[in-house]
Amino acid sequence: MTFKDVIYGRRAVNFFDPEKDVPELLLNEIIEMASQAPSGFNIQPWSLIVLRDYDDKMRLQKHAWNQSKVSEAPVTLIVLADTEGWRAGNPFLEKDFQEMLNSGAMVEEQRQWFYGVCESLYGASEARKIAFSCKNTGFFAMSLMLAAKSLGLDTHPMDGFDIDAVRGEFKIPDNYWIPLLISVGYFKSDQKRTPSKWRKTVDEIVVRFD
Amino acid sequence: MTFKDVIYGRRAVNFFDPEKDVPELLLNEIIEMASQAPSGFNIQPWSLIVLRDYDDKMRLQKHAWNQSKVSEAPVTLIVLADTEGWRAGNPFLEKDFQEMLNSGAMVEEQRQWFYGVCESLYGASEARKIAFSCKNTGFFAMSLMLAAKSLGLDTHPMDGFDIDAVRGEFKIPDNYWIPLLISVGYFKSDQKRTPSKWRKTVDEIVVRFD
Repeated sequence: MTFKDVIYGRRAVNFFDPEKDVPELLLNEIIEMASQAPSGFNIQPWSLIVLRDYDDKMRLQKHAWNQSKVSEAPVTLIVLADTEGWRAGNPFLEKDFQEMLNSGAMVEEQRQWFYGVCESLYGASEARKIAFSCKNTGFFAMSLMLAAKSLGLDTHPMDGFDIDAVRGEFKIPDNYWIPLLISVGYFKSDQKRTPSKWRKTVDEIVVRFD
Repeated sequence: MTFKDVIYGRRAVNFFDPEKDVPELLLNEIIEMASQAPSGFNIQPWSLIVLRDYDDKMRLQKHAWNQSKVSEAPVTLIVLADTEGWRAGNPFLEKDFQEMLNSGAMVEEQRQWFYGVCESLYGASEARKIAFSCKNTGFFAMSLMLAAKSLGLDTHPMDGFDIDAVRGEFKIPDNYWIPLLISVGYFKSDQKRTPSKWRKTVDEIVVRFD
């Protein structure tokens, strides 16, 4: 599919065909495409809990306004944003620094400076921790929804769930914010696709205050 | 371009050709594609300040670690996330509710319920306000970077700037978080593209705690 077909064709769908599975290899291909998203200092503060088992999906659905798509979709993802991903000692942050050493982009003497910059940009306040993790995980989640569409699948991003209850149910550690759930599957062909919702125009998006 | 070419081809580039402009119509096409991003209740809490003028870009650059790409790129965007976009009275939220009335998705009696849900999901705490606005604006910004790539342009998302100083310089109201800057332009052809950075594998992304 062309990029334009994907971006204009993606729609949050409410009805998934429970009979049409999303094979693991296909889901992995989608996740790998999504992982190409950029992130500050390449920290990649995103993770996924992949739910396929019906009972697992029902455990989630009961904390997600009982939205039936959570269990009807063959796969529902709990998207996690690591609010502590910027911290020295985090294995992915350490890998980042090591890769920068390997490529010559940084030298060992810059290690403390690098930790300090990460902390000041991403860890200096609760607001910065949430902003850093949710923005970057937003890049990843958007890429994932588009990647799914490019392979003929549909998705539905959901905010309607009880974060604390989902955290408790799946024993998700406190360092993760849960920005959204995404159901992934094939559109149920006996349903009608709703038309695209309205969007802000370019003139409504572009602002200036000074 | 195919979607796969776009997602694997996008790279944060450091060198933009200052001689190759991004015409307004082309930028508008990119913004319109990006505006197809989903958002909670279609609230679309994103805005852009578009800087083209050299002096304007230098006003930004001085608060952005003096990164020369800010002024070398023909266009640099200040991306804004409205932390108050969920609030009753916000014109886009009101338009959303009106559109739902028009389509029959909601009835007038659900107005207070709708306001309440938006507040509880997106406005109940400082963390939720930041998460809501930055996640959705992350969807928009990711779509914008991919849309630019699909039309032959390159981008560079930046976190290295002083939020408060940029806010003051461009008189940006307090309800906006500034999640990132994005430079947009054509890659400077006498420079070398750096290879892709490492990415977490699918096995590193998929987690389970229970």
